[in-house]
Amino acid sequence: MPGHAIHPIDIIRKKRHGEELSQAEVEHFVHTVVLYGEQKIAEGRGEHPTLLAATDKISEAQIAAILMAIFQHGLSHRELAWLTNAMRYSGETFDASSLNTFTVDKHSTGGVGDKSSLLIAPIVAAAGLEMSPSISVPMISGRSLGHTGGTLDKLETIPGFDTQLGLVRMAEVLRETHAAMMGQTPKLVPADRILYAMRDHTGTVESPFLITASIMSKKLAEDLKGLVLDVKVGSGAFMPTYEKSKFLAELMVSTGELAGTRTAALLTTMDEPMGRFSGNWIEVWECVDIMQGRRHPMSADLIELSTILSGWMLYFGGKSATPEAGAQLADEILASGAAYKSWLHIVAAHKGDTSIFTNPAAFHKPKASRVLKASRTGYLAGMDCTEVGWAVQRLGAGRTKPGDPVSAHAGIESHAKIGTHLKIGDPIFTLFSEDEALLAEPYRMLEATVAISDTRTEPQPLIREILTRDTVSL
Amino acid sequence: MPGHAIHPIDIIRKKRHGEELSQAEVEHFVHTVVLYGEQKIAEGRGEHPTLLAATDKISEAQIAAILMAIFQHGLSHRELAWLTNAMRYSGETFDASSLNTFTVDKHSTGGVGDKSSLLIAPIVAAAGLEMSPSISVPMISGRSLGHTGGTLDKLETIPGFDTQLGLVRMAEVLRETHAAMMGQTPKLVPADRILYAMRDHTGTVESPFLITASIMSKKLAEDLKGLVLDVKVGSGAFMPTYEKSKFLAELMVSTGELAGTRTAALLTTMDEPMGRFSGNWIEVWECVDIMQGRRHPMSADLIELSTILSGWMLYFGGKSATPEAGAQLADEILASGAAYKSWLHIVAAHKGDTSIFTNPAAFHKPKASRVLKASRTGYLAGMDCTEVGWAVQRLGAGRTKPGDPVSAHAGIESHAKIGTHLKIGDPIFTLFSEDEALLAEPYRMLEATVAISDTRTEPQPLIREILTRDTVSL
Repeated sequence: MPGHAIHPIDIIRKKRHGEELSQAEVEHFVHTVVLYGEQKIAEGRGEHPTLLAATDKISEAQIAAILMAIFQHGLSHRELAWLTNAMRYSGETFDASSLNTFTVDKHSTGGVGDKSSLLIAPIVAAAGLEMSPSISVPMISGRSLGHTGGTLDKLETIPGFDTQLGLVRMAEVLRETHAAMMGQTPKLVPADRILYAMRDHTGTVESPFLITASIMSKKLAEDLKGLVLDVKVGSGAFMPTYEKSKFLAELMVSTGELAGTRTAALLTTMDEPMGRFSGNWIEVWECVDIMQGRRHPMSADLIELSTILSGWMLYFGGKSATPEAGAQLADEILASGAAYKSWLHIVAAHKGDTSIFTNPAAFHKPKASRVLKASRTGYLAGMDCTEVGWAVQRLGAGRTKPGDPVSAHAGIESHAKIGTHLKIGDPIFTLFSEDEALLAEPYRMLEATVAISDTRTEPQPLIREILTRDTVSL
Repeated sequence: MPGHAIHPIDIIRKKRHGEELSQAEVEHFVHTVVLYGEQKIAEGRGEHPTLLAATDKISEAQIAAILMAIFQHGLSHRELAWLTNAMRYSGETFDASSLNTFTVDKHSTGGVGDKSSLLIAPIVAAAGLEMSPSISVPMISGRSLGHTGGTLDKLETIPGFDTQLGLVRMAEVLRETHAAMMGQTPKLVPADRILYAMRDHTGTVESPFLITASIMSKKLAEDLKGLVLDVKVGSGAFMPTYEKSKFLAELMVSTGELAGTRTAALLTTMDEPMGRFSGNWIEVWECVDIMQGRRHPMSADLIELSTILSGWMLYFGGKSATPEAGAQLADEILASGAAYKSWLHIVAAHKGDTSIFTNPAAFHKPKASRVLKASRTGYLAGMDCTEVGWAVQRLGAGRTKPGDPVSAHAGIESHAKIGTHLKIGDPIFTLFSEDEALLAEPYRMLEATVAISDTRTEPQPLIREILTRDTVSL
């Protein structure tokens, strides 16, 4: 902490005019936010909160004013790096130094049917296990958010799978299997938890600067040497335009590199559900099929994305001379069965029941289903992929409030991709739910958003642009 | 209240991008702010606050976020009028309809030694009492703020003077004397009290839009038919530049006129203390001297300002064909002794002891004084008038926190105005205090800020610019 007293009002007065804060001011802000959060937690428990020194105090209104001023004026590269770093170290952090390994992770800004994490972790872990130098994936994931799915919700459909490892067990699992897939611990990056709740409440969620600090503080708390970011663009992406997605990607790359982590961001197309299935268990099933060697045509985009992202991770970890060679290696690891072997290893380390992978299709038990068919002959022209994501959520795959259970079996199967020629009556989506009554609304949503046209629209390429320290100004 | 539910987050989402809010949204914001304030007051008293409906709730963080978004993007003329109006009617208001009079008031943005209210109220009241049609001044004033003095603090140096009339007694006093001079009631414009405290806390005080809503809501709650604004410019003004003062003046004129109140704003120079004395009782003394017919040379600027402002009020009230003729009339009312007669009447109606006006100089009893003399021969070139104001406050005329008493006798006497030729050793200021120990720091402050130069600087004209509905876009 700085030697002289910093007052929140002085931070606001600078930031409301877009002036650059000092490192001490940014650190003081995060410090007071964490103390504010601890006080709120104590009050919520009915405990008498610790008396704070005047210089440690910040009010709810002052946090909100600072967030809105940042929303309006943004942050310089340095300020963003300081904010991210102060948040990263605001609670416990993972320390990978004793593992003697190259830690690398992947983060996605969120998509529909995007289960690439489930393939990438075993692919990279297989390379880490079998080849020197060591490489490991300390993957801390999230749950379903808005119209997008969450890795934890998918993994937890595997009977017994424990996503609440904690950092000590995570280190052990990484040592054993070279990949751990878990949820955030309560003590990891507490500043983000407080600021995120406040942003949600004050209309400051969409700031690319605050999004970067939130994502990167959590990823960097994994003690990463390399990070690959999958930044979605298109109708299913959170960011509304290509330019805004690219700006966010640039901020994240510069913030990662300033923190000493090799960082690449791939801008990837999210105009339709990724792969064959969108839901929870059905996404695990799709990955198990792929790892067992069955490559369904609808999974082609998923496999391509997963091997390209893995390729960058393998390249950062010194397993290949180029990212392209890394993608080739990833595909070989997948095809050879090494990724599946690694997957079984990882699931077992998380206490998951691997016996269900023998016949994954049999584990899919929706009580109700309905097929959306082409209303006329023509080419599948497009859809609002965010609307498709919401349909998946409303079938039961998502939750309406935190803590609610999600359905393992709800979701959709895609039968066609954009550009596919359809005859009238051909299936486009099969909808699954555990409750017949939940089918009608998502069916209408999907029916309304799917467009069929007489002329073929060429789909966007999967990878639109790649940003690294060589292309981003730091 | 609007029929459909409005949520604070929707208001924030619009305002953070500078979109115009609807009237219903602005009114809902003020409605929820008042309920929020009532809850806080109840909590502060240890009472169980009323349970609010979800649609009536706003959090401290959300109020702060909205204030910061307004600070950044401002408000349209319509939004500002809606906000001012919603604040104006957020609590009790004065209703002048039964008085059958033209209500007119003056408001100043705050200066040093500016006691024009003490002259204007009796001048206009004298015209209201003695001439048809009726005209009255329902003047609700404030206390010393920052480096500036407050009318209430000055009036309360008159033994017995009651500034806490309340609205019922105010109507009676207006009927009797045609001028009432009182403090705000606890129930008048409660939205401003809450928002002002929040602005102070969140670095959003200086927004000209929020300043306008704050000032105009309180003035319009006096049920005014006419309003004259004295907007200070120069080194003693709150607004840092001429352009910002003018912008604020334009906003206030357009807001007043949109509310149906004839409004004029005079941009007036505040580069040095106004008149002869700056303090509390000594300012009353100066005014009594003037009203009794003694016009000290140092009071010339004060008399000019007071008659010009009164002139506009008399013109709005139909007492003169032009503002200039109104100023002439005001000067005659002052010179004839009619204003002094009115003053005695007004003070008596407020239970003030008028016997002290027989020898006002004798009532001035500072325990300590010191004279700042010219350090060399030359022309008085200028000073930081804000610094002079702070020196006056620190002599004891101001308070360091709300509720503290102020010294009746502390302050300064000006012996020279900008442009005056001084010989070495000539007095510039006499400092008064009730505590010898309080002289040293203000003396040093004044000594440091007063500049003497070999060439004469022409002082700025007192009236810089006049804004009315004819010069301001509404």
